[in-house]
Amino acid sequence: MTGTLYGLGIGPGDPELITLKALRLLRAVEVIAYPAPEHGDSLARRIVAPHLPEGRTEIAIRMPLVEARFPAQEVYDSAALKLGEHLHAGRDAAVLCEGDPFFYGSFMYLFGRMAENFRVEVVPGVSSLTACAAVLGAPLAARNDVLTVVPAPLPEAELLARLKDCDAAAIIKVGRHLDKVRRVLEDLRLSADARYVEHATMASQRVLTLDQVSEDAAPYFSMILVHRRGEAWR
Amino acid sequence: MTGTLYGLGIGPGDPELITLKALRLLRAVEVIAYPAPEHGDSLARRIVAPHLPEGRTEIAIRMPLVEARFPAQEVYDSAALKLGEHLHAGRDAAVLCEGDPFFYGSFMYLFGRMAENFRVEVVPGVSSLTACAAVLGAPLAARNDVLTVVPAPLPEAELLARLKDCDAAAIIKVGRHLDKVRRVLEDLRLSADARYVEHATMASQRVLTLDQVSEDAAPYFSMILVHRRGEAWR
Repeated sequence: MTGTLYGLGIGPGDPELITLKALRLLRAVEVIAYPAPEHGDSLARRIVAPHLPEGRTEIAIRMPLVEARFPAQEVYDSAALKLGEHLHAGRDAAVLCEGDPFFYGSFMYLFGRMAENFRVEVVPGVSSLTACAAVLGAPLAARNDVLTVVPAPLPEAELLARLKDCDAAAIIKVGRHLDKVRRVLEDLRLSADARYVEHATMASQRVLTLDQVSEDAAPYFSMILVHRRGEAWR
Repeated sequence: MTGTLYGLGIGPGDPELITLKALRLLRAVEVIAYPAPEHGDSLARRIVAPHLPEGRTEIAIRMPLVEARFPAQEVYDSAALKLGEHLHAGRDAAVLCEGDPFFYGSFMYLFGRMAENFRVEVVPGVSSLTACAAVLGAPLAARNDVLTVVPAPLPEAELLARLKDCDAAAIIKVGRHLDKVRRVLEDLRLSADARYVEHATMASQRVLTLDQVSEDAAPYFSMILVHRRGEAWR
C-alpha cells in the first residue's frame, strides 16, 4: 500500500489556529516536511511545535528565498524524490503549509510534481487573508463587494489598474514593495483607510497605518487591507 | 465585568475543520448564537453539534433568507439586544459563523451593532474559498496571480468586466445566478476549465463541470472557481 501525501494547512501562525483535522493527521503520519530558510528554523515547524510528537522523520525543504518568484526547482525535485520514497514504502507524509496550502502557497510546487503519481489530499487552513481581517477587527468584504487579492511584486502600473475599481483589496507579499504600494494607494486616495499587518496572530504581530511603517522594516509576509468604503459594513 | 462577544469562524462544514481556538471558546462561553432559517435547523449549529456541551443558552438568529442582500435589520437589532443583555450580566457569548466571520459573513451586521459598546474578538476560520480549492484539488492562486472574488448577484455586464482580466477567480453565492455566470464564462472562454462546488467538505458536497449542473439545483452556498491558465501552477 502506497502512502498518502497530505498538504496540511496549519493556519497563519497562532498554534491554536490549527484545525482538528490537521492536528489529527500531524499526529498520525510518520513523515513531515516543511519549508525552511537556507539556514535556521522553519516558521511552519515552529507553528506546529507545541503539537508535534517525538520521533517523526523530518524533511526540511531548505529554500534560498530571495523572492518567491524564482523557486529553486531542484530543491522541490529533491523534496519530491524523498517524499516519494516514503510514500512508496507505505508511509504517509504531511507537508506543513503556513496558512492554506492552495492560497499562494509553495505547496503547489510539490503538488505539481506528485499529484499524478500519488494520492494527495489537501487540508484547507485558516489563511493569512482572513487572519489579517480578524486582527484588524474589520470585515474583509461584505454583501456584493468584489474582493481583489493583489501580489505587491506586480509592476506599479498594473497595481494601479487592479486597485482602481476594487471594492475591497488585500495586497499581499508587501515587504520591499511597500513604497510602491503606498504611492499607488495615495494616487487612488485609499491610503488613509488602508491598514498594514505583519505576522498576523503571532507574538510578533504588528498592525500599523501606512505612515507608521517603513519599507526596510516590512517583512515578505506582510499584507495591506483596504476597503473603498473605509469599512466593509457601511 | 462585562462579557466578551466572540465571532467564531467554525469552518466550511466538516466539523473537523474547526480550529482549536474556536473549539476552546465554544466550550468556554455560556451563550451561543447562530444564524438559522425562519423554520428548521441552523447549518452553523449542525457543524459544531459534535463539539457542543449541554446546557448552553442558545439564541437562534432566525432570518427570512430570500437573498442575503436584504438582511432584516430588526432581526439583528433583536439579536444584538439579547446578546448585549448577556454580556452586561458578565457572560461571554459566541456567534457561530460558517467559514470565516469577516469573509462575506453575516456576522458583520452584529459586529456593526456591538463593536463600539462591547469587547468583540473575531476568531478567523477556514473559509469556503480555500475549502473549495482543497476539494477540487487545484491551487486557487499562485505566484503573482491576481485573485478576484466576485459575488454572482452582480449584474451580467459587471461580472463580465470583473472577470475579463482575472488570473484566478472565485464566483461566490452562485445559486439562481448560475445561468448568468455560465454565459459570462462562455463569453470569456473560461467555462471549460471552470469548476462548480457546492457544500464543500460536507457530506452533501458536489463537484461538477459547468455543463453538469442546472440552475434550479444550485444552492445559495455554491461557488465556481476558474483559472485563466487552466491550472494555477502552470
